[in-house]
Amino acid sequence: MTKLKNDRFLRALRREAVDRTPVWIMRQAGRYLPEYREIRKQAGSFMNLCTNPELACEVTMQPLRRFDLDAAILFSDILTIPDAMGLGLYFSEGEGPKFKRTVRSASDVAALPRPDPGDSLAYVVNAVSRIHRELDNTIPLIGFSGSPWTLATYMVEGGPSKSYSKVKGLMYEQPSTAHALLSKLADSVTDYLNAQIEAGAQAVQIFDSWGGILSHDKYIPFSLDYMQRIVSGLNAGPDGEQVPVILFSKGCNGHLEAMADSGCQALGIDWTLSLNEARSRVGERVAIQGNLDPAVLQASPDVIRRQVQAALESFGRGHGHVFNLGHGITPDVKPEHLGALVEAVAELSPAFHDRA
Amino acid sequence: MTKLKNDRFLRALRREAVDRTPVWIMRQAGRYLPEYREIRKQAGSFMNLCTNPELACEVTMQPLRRFDLDAAILFSDILTIPDAMGLGLYFSEGEGPKFKRTVRSASDVAALPRPDPGDSLAYVVNAVSRIHRELDNTIPLIGFSGSPWTLATYMVEGGPSKSYSKVKGLMYEQPSTAHALLSKLADSVTDYLNAQIEAGAQAVQIFDSWGGILSHDKYIPFSLDYMQRIVSGLNAGPDGEQVPVILFSKGCNGHLEAMADSGCQALGIDWTLSLNEARSRVGERVAIQGNLDPAVLQASPDVIRRQVQAALESFGRGHGHVFNLGHGITPDVKPEHLGALVEAVAELSPAFHDRA
Repeated sequence: MTKLKNDRFLRALRREAVDRTPVWIMRQAGRYLPEYREIRKQAGSFMNLCTNPELACEVTMQPLRRFDLDAAILFSDILTIPDAMGLGLYFSEGEGPKFKRTVRSASDVAALPRPDPGDSLAYVVNAVSRIHRELDNTIPLIGFSGSPWTLATYMVEGGPSKSYSKVKGLMYEQPSTAHALLSKLADSVTDYLNAQIEAGAQAVQIFDSWGGILSHDKYIPFSLDYMQRIVSGLNAGPDGEQVPVILFSKGCNGHLEAMADSGCQALGIDWTLSLNEARSRVGERVAIQGNLDPAVLQASPDVIRRQVQAALESFGRGHGHVFNLGHGITPDVKPEHLGALVEAVAELSPAFHDRA
Repeated sequence: MTKLKNDRFLRALRREAVDRTPVWIMRQAGRYLPEYREIRKQAGSFMNLCTNPELACEVTMQPLRRFDLDAAILFSDILTIPDAMGLGLYFSEGEGPKFKRTVRSASDVAALPRPDPGDSLAYVVNAVSRIHRELDNTIPLIGFSGSPWTLATYMVEGGPSKSYSKVKGLMYEQPSTAHALLSKLADSVTDYLNAQIEAGAQAVQIFDSWGGILSHDKYIPFSLDYMQRIVSGLNAGPDGEQVPVILFSKGCNGHLEAMADSGCQALGIDWTLSLNEARSRVGERVAIQGNLDPAVLQASPDVIRRQVQAALESFGRGHGHVFNLGHGITPDVKPEHLGALVEAVAELSPAFHDRA
């Protein structure tokens, strides 16, 4: 293992001292970049882009050429596992991801295979290897997966939903079928993330995009418990060190303490909680990633800079903070505005670290 | 004033003793009822239904003929005020409410009139009078409005949004324009609710459907402060008594204590917080309304009954609880399932009250 030139992100996840707060941005490789839209057009469809390791690698690298980011993140989709289970993922313009087949009964669940990442998900593993090689030990690469609960919502509903009536109906009416599905998904996600780690991912993030729709008494048994099982099933990296895991349960601020006890190294939080409150609630257990409102990037560079300063002050001095938005960057953002954010973090954050 | 035959709902809002927990359901007059769909078809469009006091009264009464509910709620839309301001509300199938004109600058805000409820909103006031007469002092009538922030999101975006980039962009970049808009809306909502109270509404609910998209430091100055201004500007009812106000800020559980100090009588909460925790956080300040996950109604009557019991136990013994869902009932619910919920509340809740 050659040492990383910039390991600020991994150090922050381990709550070690850093010279400045590391920064990366959810969906940093995405539609707000004209060079992304160009490649996306060439690919013909979003899935063609995801399944072509060369193109997936290219779009992963694009934001790194523009901005001084402290981590790269694999370009892929959260729904690759259900697709590899045979549900037939497709994207219909303006309606988001959809599945040709849904999962709504115990026999549907029993029929689902546990995908072999070396086979039906090889395109993702190959993309990870290629990106890792291309990064050439400059900055770490983040792998990722959707959480079991989040994957289950799409598999049962057949696509995005307003009310999630079908997946929640299954949970209330046939809890054992819901648990069988989540259990199979947890095993599959574990295999998938282990394959990404083996191929070179130096940290992984679990996106629990729909954990926040669960009622107070259902979030832990139907979402967090399965993420915890994944965390405990992950292998060490090629250097023998534990690979840090970031849990991002959108809209689950009420469960922060339980999440911090899941064995993960960091929690991603959205902008509805202050960094200060998040830090005081999780204490020394985990690092915190976030949490600027992506809409701040609609404003002018001075406003962005003031909001970055406010976020840094909210977290306060010391380690364990990874700067990010509280959700993905939106397609309507001007790339220079993200540039203003990244520069502001680089310039303003050393004052919050002893190693400055 | 003739006394109400059933004042359980108003007593619970005032945290007075009751024989059993009162229950009503958000969107109880709605698409899950075949008789509603029939009238909606006759009306031709949703707006035709809202603007016709006779039909609006008829659909308000429909759920009361099926279920033993403790309150009626005016059938209307939250966007009547921006429509009365001249923005041109319309509904496009599958896309939700839209406006022909948007509000995006200081001059757009300055040009907005403060609607006279007796004029451009007379159809709502007339519907309230008619429903109040039709109810004949059996149960109380709830009037309502959208919150200033929630109305502003639609007015600036021009319709529903995923990221709310435009309205939040305005808030971050031109906060004084955003405040001017919210201030005008707060005055208009106050006039509107006072007209509903004068016409017979015995309680009012403010729907802050999009308060939860605001960051931790923006919710109070951009949403709650304006709702508080409305609360303090409301007139007493015809009997000289204060008309109870319910604030329902979806996804704002982090701000419950501040909401409880706003001068309102009750807080509506969603299912992501337990009734027990909500009650212990607000103490004796306000009543709590909620909070069953609407998806529970997808399950069978026994499951519904067990979930009702669990909610009653979570709130515990004593007064100050109004049973409701944590959000509106969805169109895919079987009416008999709502019947099971209402019956379960009637049968199981007396055990939690001393006057049983």
